[in-house]
Amino acid sequence: MAKAKYVYIFGNKKADGDGSMKALLGGKGANLAEMTRIGLPVPPGFTITTEVCTYYYANKRTYPKELQAQVEAGVANMEKILGKKFGDLNKPLLVAVRSGARDSMPGMMDTILNLGLNDQTVIALEKASGNPRFAWDCYRRFIQMYGDVVMGVQKRPGEDHEPFEIVIDQLKEELFPGQHHVEDTKIDAEGLKELVNRFKALVKDRTGKAFPNNPWDQLKGAVGAVFGSWMNDRAMVYRRKYGIPSEWGTAVNVQAMVFGNTGQNSGSGVAFTRDPASGEKVFYGEFLMNAQGEDVVAGVRTPEPVALLKNEQPKAFAELEKVRKTLESHFKDMQDFEFTIEDGQLFMLQTRNGKRTGLAAVRIAVEMVKEKLITWETAITRVPAEQLDQVLAPVFDRAAVKAAKVIAKGLPAGPGAASGRIYFNADRAVLAAEAKEKVLLVRVETSPEDLRGMIAAEGILTARGGVSSHAALVARQMGKVCVCGASALHVDYANKILIVDGQEFKEGDYLSIDGTLGEVYAGELKTAASEIVQVLVEKSLDAKDSATFRNFKQLMDWCAKATKLLVRTNADSPDQTANAIAFGASGIGLCRTEHMFFEGDRIDAMREMILAENTEDRKKALAKLLPYQREDFIGIFKELKGLPATIRFLDPPLHEFLPHEGSLIRDLSEKIGVTPEKIAKRVAELHEFNPMLGHRGCRLGIAYPEISEMQARAVFEAAVEVQKKGIKVKPEIMIPLVGFPKELQLQIDVVNRVAQEVAKEKKTKLNYLVGTMIEIPRAALVADDIAKDAQFFSFGTNDLTQTTLGMSRDDSGSFLPKYGELEIIKKNPFASIDQTGVGRLMQMAVELGRKTRPDIKLGICGEHGGDPDSVKFCHRIGLNYVSCSPFRVPVARLAAAQAALSEAKAAKTAPKKKKK
Amino acid sequence: MAKAKYVYIFGNKKADGDGSMKALLGGKGANLAEMTRIGLPVPPGFTITTEVCTYYYANKRTYPKELQAQVEAGVANMEKILGKKFGDLNKPLLVAVRSGARDSMPGMMDTILNLGLNDQTVIALEKASGNPRFAWDCYRRFIQMYGDVVMGVQKRPGEDHEPFEIVIDQLKEELFPGQHHVEDTKIDAEGLKELVNRFKALVKDRTGKAFPNNPWDQLKGAVGAVFGSWMNDRAMVYRRKYGIPSEWGTAVNVQAMVFGNTGQNSGSGVAFTRDPASGEKVFYGEFLMNAQGEDVVAGVRTPEPVALLKNEQPKAFAELEKVRKTLESHFKDMQDFEFTIEDGQLFMLQTRNGKRTGLAAVRIAVEMVKEKLITWETAITRVPAEQLDQVLAPVFDRAAVKAAKVIAKGLPAGPGAASGRIYFNADRAVLAAEAKEKVLLVRVETSPEDLRGMIAAEGILTARGGVSSHAALVARQMGKVCVCGASALHVDYANKILIVDGQEFKEGDYLSIDGTLGEVYAGELKTAASEIVQVLVEKSLDAKDSATFRNFKQLMDWCAKATKLLVRTNADSPDQTANAIAFGASGIGLCRTEHMFFEGDRIDAMREMILAENTEDRKKALAKLLPYQREDFIGIFKELKGLPATIRFLDPPLHEFLPHEGSLIRDLSEKIGVTPEKIAKRVAELHEFNPMLGHRGCRLGIAYPEISEMQARAVFEAAVEVQKKGIKVKPEIMIPLVGFPKELQLQIDVVNRVAQEVAKEKKTKLNYLVGTMIEIPRAALVADDIAKDAQFFSFGTNDLTQTTLGMSRDDSGSFLPKYGELEIIKKNPFASIDQTGVGRLMQMAVELGRKTRPDIKLGICGEHGGDPDSVKFCHRIGLNYVSCSPFRVPVARLAAAQAALSEAKAAKTAPKKKKK
Repeated sequence: MAKAKYVYIFGNKKADGDGSMKALLGGKGANLAEMTRIGLPVPPGFTITTEVCTYYYANKRTYPKELQAQVEAGVANMEKILGKKFGDLNKPLLVAVRSGARDSMPGMMDTILNLGLNDQTVIALEKASGNPRFAWDCYRRFIQMYGDVVMGVQKRPGEDHEPFEIVIDQLKEELFPGQHHVEDTKIDAEGLKELVNRFKALVKDRTGKAFPNNPWDQLKGAVGAVFGSWMNDRAMVYRRKYGIPSEWGTAVNVQAMVFGNTGQNSGSGVAFTRDPASGEKVFYGEFLMNAQGEDVVAGVRTPEPVALLKNEQPKAFAELEKVRKTLESHFKDMQDFEFTIEDGQLFMLQTRNGKRTGLAAVRIAVEMVKEKLITWETAITRVPAEQLDQVLAPVFDRAAVKAAKVIAKGLPAGPGAASGRIYFNADRAVLAAEAKEKVLLVRVETSPEDLRGMIAAEGILTARGGVSSHAALVARQMGKVCVCGASALHVDYANKILIVDGQEFKEGDYLSIDGTLGEVYAGELKTAASEIVQVLVEKSLDAKDSATFRNFKQLMDWCAKATKLLVRTNADSPDQTANAIAFGASGIGLCRTEHMFFEGDRIDAMREMILAENTEDRKKALAKLLPYQREDFIGIFKELKGLPATIRFLDPPLHEFLPHEGSLIRDLSEKIGVTPEKIAKRVAELHEFNPMLGHRGCRLGIAYPEISEMQARAVFEAAVEVQKKGIKVKPEIMIPLVGFPKELQLQIDVVNRVAQEVAKEKKTKLNYLVGTMIEIPRAALVADDIAKDAQFFSFGTNDLTQTTLGMSRDDSGSFLPKYGELEIIKKNPFASIDQTGVGRLMQMAVELGRKTRPDIKLGICGEHGGDPDSVKFCHRIGLNYVSCSPFRVPVARLAAAQAALSEAKAAKTAPKKKKK
Repeated sequence: MAKAKYVYIFGNKKADGDGSMKALLGGKGANLAEMTRIGLPVPPGFTITTEVCTYYYANKRTYPKELQAQVEAGVANMEKILGKKFGDLNKPLLVAVRSGARDSMPGMMDTILNLGLNDQTVIALEKASGNPRFAWDCYRRFIQMYGDVVMGVQKRPGEDHEPFEIVIDQLKEELFPGQHHVEDTKIDAEGLKELVNRFKALVKDRTGKAFPNNPWDQLKGAVGAVFGSWMNDRAMVYRRKYGIPSEWGTAVNVQAMVFGNTGQNSGSGVAFTRDPASGEKVFYGEFLMNAQGEDVVAGVRTPEPVALLKNEQPKAFAELEKVRKTLESHFKDMQDFEFTIEDGQLFMLQTRNGKRTGLAAVRIAVEMVKEKLITWETAITRVPAEQLDQVLAPVFDRAAVKAAKVIAKGLPAGPGAASGRIYFNADRAVLAAEAKEKVLLVRVETSPEDLRGMIAAEGILTARGGVSSHAALVARQMGKVCVCGASALHVDYANKILIVDGQEFKEGDYLSIDGTLGEVYAGELKTAASEIVQVLVEKSLDAKDSATFRNFKQLMDWCAKATKLLVRTNADSPDQTANAIAFGASGIGLCRTEHMFFEGDRIDAMREMILAENTEDRKKALAKLLPYQREDFIGIFKELKGLPATIRFLDPPLHEFLPHEGSLIRDLSEKIGVTPEKIAKRVAELHEFNPMLGHRGCRLGIAYPEISEMQARAVFEAAVEVQKKGIKVKPEIMIPLVGFPKELQLQIDVVNRVAQEVAKEKKTKLNYLVGTMIEIPRAALVADDIAKDAQFFSFGTNDLTQTTLGMSRDDSGSFLPKYGELEIIKKNPFASIDQTGVGRLMQMAVELGRKTRPDIKLGICGEHGGDPDSVKFCHRIGLNYVSCSPFRVPVARLAAAQAALSEAKAAKTAPKKKKK
């Protein structure tokens, strides 16, 4: 057996490890090795592998016997490269000890700097640097860090301040009596010497142990503390949250110290190879002269833009520019790195792939393909799908935001920025919008009655409801800006005022909302549409040549090449359809026919239908609705230009269409000539305890087949009309809320009968499919039976989630946040499919459905269709398409392409099956 | 190959077939053969097998070539036995042709009597009988039946009357001009002759064909008509409804005619070997002299009790008495049979097992065991489980019912009879009951707030809600009489009146309700408790020796011997517990702890808890509830005497405990010193769109762990208290509405912690289990994970049905009836488990649960636990117990015993597996 290797050294352009060894060396260690190999100026050092961590916990916190010798060899290598010696009284080697797990785990353990200092070596450092204050400051910092992290001198219950800070404050009080807020830098070398003594006394007092003087003891203690930290509470909580297995373990990096704080020729900085906000290929970052890395981040002094370094340290800057290029050409991605300049000499301390905004992600990915750094397939995987809608959202002017005050926070339900005058009622919002006002609709919560108001508004703000509330759902579908569930709002409908934290806003006052951040501002803030929306939706040609639009378009074109899973849209109007197609939708996956009944006069005919006392009267009212509905379908079919449209028949309970308040009932009574008493009686009759589980979906079509008849006729007559113009039409009629095979059969009978009638009347042929939503558990459980009649299934995952989890979307706001905190649920199940529960049912339905009808078309039309993880799940279980709101189409297309690429990659790397 | 046998003859004590051959000969044919074999006086005849029917449809409505010869041989056998001849001019053989499927299919096809008559043979019959009117009446009846059934002379669209009836009416008008309502019997022989002519003309006119004169042609036509009728609409609908496969086919019985209408020495009757209403072993039935069988049933003349036959026909009666004994000793069951006496001679035309009431079923089964006719195992299978609760229900005096008027009908939700003064409000009902009034609580629908009123009432009547509504559920659990969903009722709470069809009933007026029939009567009707309830519940010794009680007890004792599946009860109080144990429950399967919070002062403490604004105040209010809850558990544990109790922690949404109306809110405000505004605000906060899917179940215990803590403490402190008295206590704590494994873990942590605390405080040991309800689909889907922590599962099939079907129990009343009509759903899924959908989920959960924890305890506590089919399903999927309301315990025990016996029988008769 080969001798086990536990220590990987790096330095002087040579390294035992490389960038691919993140599992063994951790992310930091692997990249330090890699940077060393490619000749970047990395201070030498070594990495103790994650296997040692595993060994440590498997063997009662002891180390493999080979370790000590390998560590010594690692130290010897540093000593040789630097011509210094650990513990030496003339040229002492000082090191930094840092943890480094496979994935970055911020804050898991603090870094220990300046290790190797003691009462003797500090003198050597004083001499070597010629800077006593620097040397003693390093020493006291080391004792402070080591005392805290390794020896456990920490704040005790009941104490207000960290013990080391208390000692510092006492000293300051003695040195500068009566002065407040004295900076640490005011303490001179003598003062720091005194501090070192007091710190050591504190350690002794608190731990009963003397501070270790021997650098080897110090190193052993620091390595043990890093491994020990792997199992501390903070780390375990973090791992549980992000699903990191505890078996991974952490590595330990021991690296020679370099100092950015030796004087005005030294400094430290953090930089990105490109702008992480815009993605522009410029050198982006900041630095501080005469400072260590932590000072840059801590923000005590304000750092300067990295470009200014050119003036201060032209040589180091030139080298840094070279490093920047090397990093990108080598790592093939935008890098986020840390550097230190010690007496004019550049050192690299860390590099990793940089976090970026959606806008930047798109730009960087696309431009890197142009630069031939990466392939287009890689570019697709580089943009986190959920970030893509950031490029579509309108934005506030940055300066305006800085000046404004956040008065309340809610859930970011419809990304983007909107300002407007507030209105509390849909009708008044519509009037104001007609008078060319910019309107924000503010409601406790919204309902379908508010739809016209929502259409008229720039943005929607609610005090109640989650990211899947009616407001959020409609907002996303329409691409409206929306903040919902801003619980600090008190909406007083009666007096038409909004009270927030004592402040009153009257109808007509200005508010602004940021639906990307969930923030509400007082007053009017300046906004603009994203360039992509300007081109695709507003059809403005101005932005067509903007980098943002071109990059977006390029990415989407690549997605089209990669994808298997199609993306359709949820759209109820020609406009929405056109937008979705502009975003690349392959058809409509969900056309909610009931939304068509709320506009203008239609709602009156609808109400007449509901109030009808017999089939004949109902048919009369339905006859009034027929032309409206037919016109809608004509508009939609025209926009689709031959793409398929899944049309869902009437779904919501009828009471949603009736007015519930006295005055509105009286208005309706006057309009349609039914007594208010009769209307009120019908409203009471239709009242349900749990409308979600009530008389809705196909249960309506079964009780009143004439409704389905009218809807089928509208679809088919529209199809005939549009076909005449030479445009193909592919309606896919979807029966909602089916749980029993016979429900579907009965409704299919109606549809087929009407199709035959229309075909005969119009002397033409009609092509269509009839299928069902799978949105209650029973449908999934008997999917084999249902597939006998259904030509397609579309998973209605909104309702399927509500029923499978026994959890109302609208009511879950009262306990879901707590469920998140307690980690009962990892993700909001109304935003991302609950794959363990709901997903299991979906898989069952897919298998059962295909068993009966191998060519059954399978899709999803719940709001989950726009969630990247859900889209990937749908790809994995073999659906044909997902459907989402128009403005989510790009996100879903990107997620679908990523799913396909990830599958292709897995197939390539999967081990071939052995023959038996 | 043996020659195919299509015709089975019977007659003169010999028969080709026997009683076991119901599949081949149909029920009627098999029993005619059996009666012939055992020497009963059956007119000879033959049965054409069901295989001929199958052949007929498989071969384009043709017959097997062997059939004709076999039919001729069958006729020849009759001729030989009777010394008559088919078509003979002196002694013509006349036959009856009847259908007879494996299962009785009433009304599928009419019988054809007197076949063989024609213009010649009618003369012979006239001579042989010496009764011309009789002969011609037979002939005209034959033409009428044959013309209708075989030749299709039926009412056409637009015609008011049957064509043959029109002809009769015309003749009567001619014979008795101006007289109304002349009876057919007034028409003399000459008139009947004329009628025969006119009938024949009608047939010719309507069908274009002459009435067949040749008896063989007549026979062929009649047989074809019987087979043809197997596929008519009526028969197909019937088969679909009762799940009879169309492949079964029908048999045809051809049997020599006997005449009960030849004069005063003749007659016909229908009789039972025992009283089918009471089960008493008396000869029960009725007869009509000088009449054919159909006259007895038609009710034109009022038949006389069969005992009186002794006077009129002593010889025939004696013979009949013998037949009665033979039938029972042979068929080993109570028989329902038809007989005809022709000129003093007895003939048997049919026998089958008689339908009976629940009361009779028990008595007959038990007494037959005593008489050594059947084994005790058979006795158990003889009582339809769903009929058993008839023996427990109070009853109305029969005479009283006859005199009363049904003013409305609703759903029979709580069997039995109750009279009382009506009250519309729980408080006033309680007051009236305290003043010793008999009270009926009348509500639009009930809620937990009405509970005290329901307890105080004799019966509950609601205008809305189905058999699983709150009213029905509570009524069954308490054994209260209940009629619900009587939609004709208009309840006017404000004016305290009930309006039914224009009639007004004021508060305090008497109504009576029959919860077995769902009928509502005006006024007070006399009632009495069943003898079983008198003994077991009212502990009255008077009825202890009654046959009803003794037979019931005997049956239950036998059930205990047979059963594997245990029956527990849903009980929330010591009283209910005691009743259930008296009925044989093996413990409590569901103790709903929230019911305990509605009584007296408790509701105020509960409301304080809900209105608390922080944990501390909530704990204070909970501390007030603790002693109440502990006392309840002490009472229950004492009654259980060591039997286990599954205790469900708080389940309903909190708003159910708060008052919603202004005046009640003001009352509460005064009581507990919280402002009405604050209460109203909290009520509004707690309002939910779909409370069924809202903040309830374990979601409460997770939001407010202090509630679970208090409940656990109450359970354990009560356990300690009762254990001290030397009584064992086995609490099984059940966490409701779990969908995610972690929900259960968190609640188990609370329970275990409190258990340790109490054990330490009281220095004792506690034995308990913690488990969960499986009542939302997700729990079933991840049952393997949940079983890691759950020591038992209890299927909450009420909610599991609601969520799996996406159907609210309370709201489904608006469409479920239609679903029944359209046969979308065969049985109400809230009454009997939806085995295809919900059942599939249950099976999945059973398999997954046992995979993780092989010894997991499995039960069901939904209302389905009292439904026999559901109990049998639970036995099949391997549950350990079912739980149901106390008064359903006997029903469930019987069903469980039947399931075990049926399984044992299947195991015995299953073919052994072949070795490979």
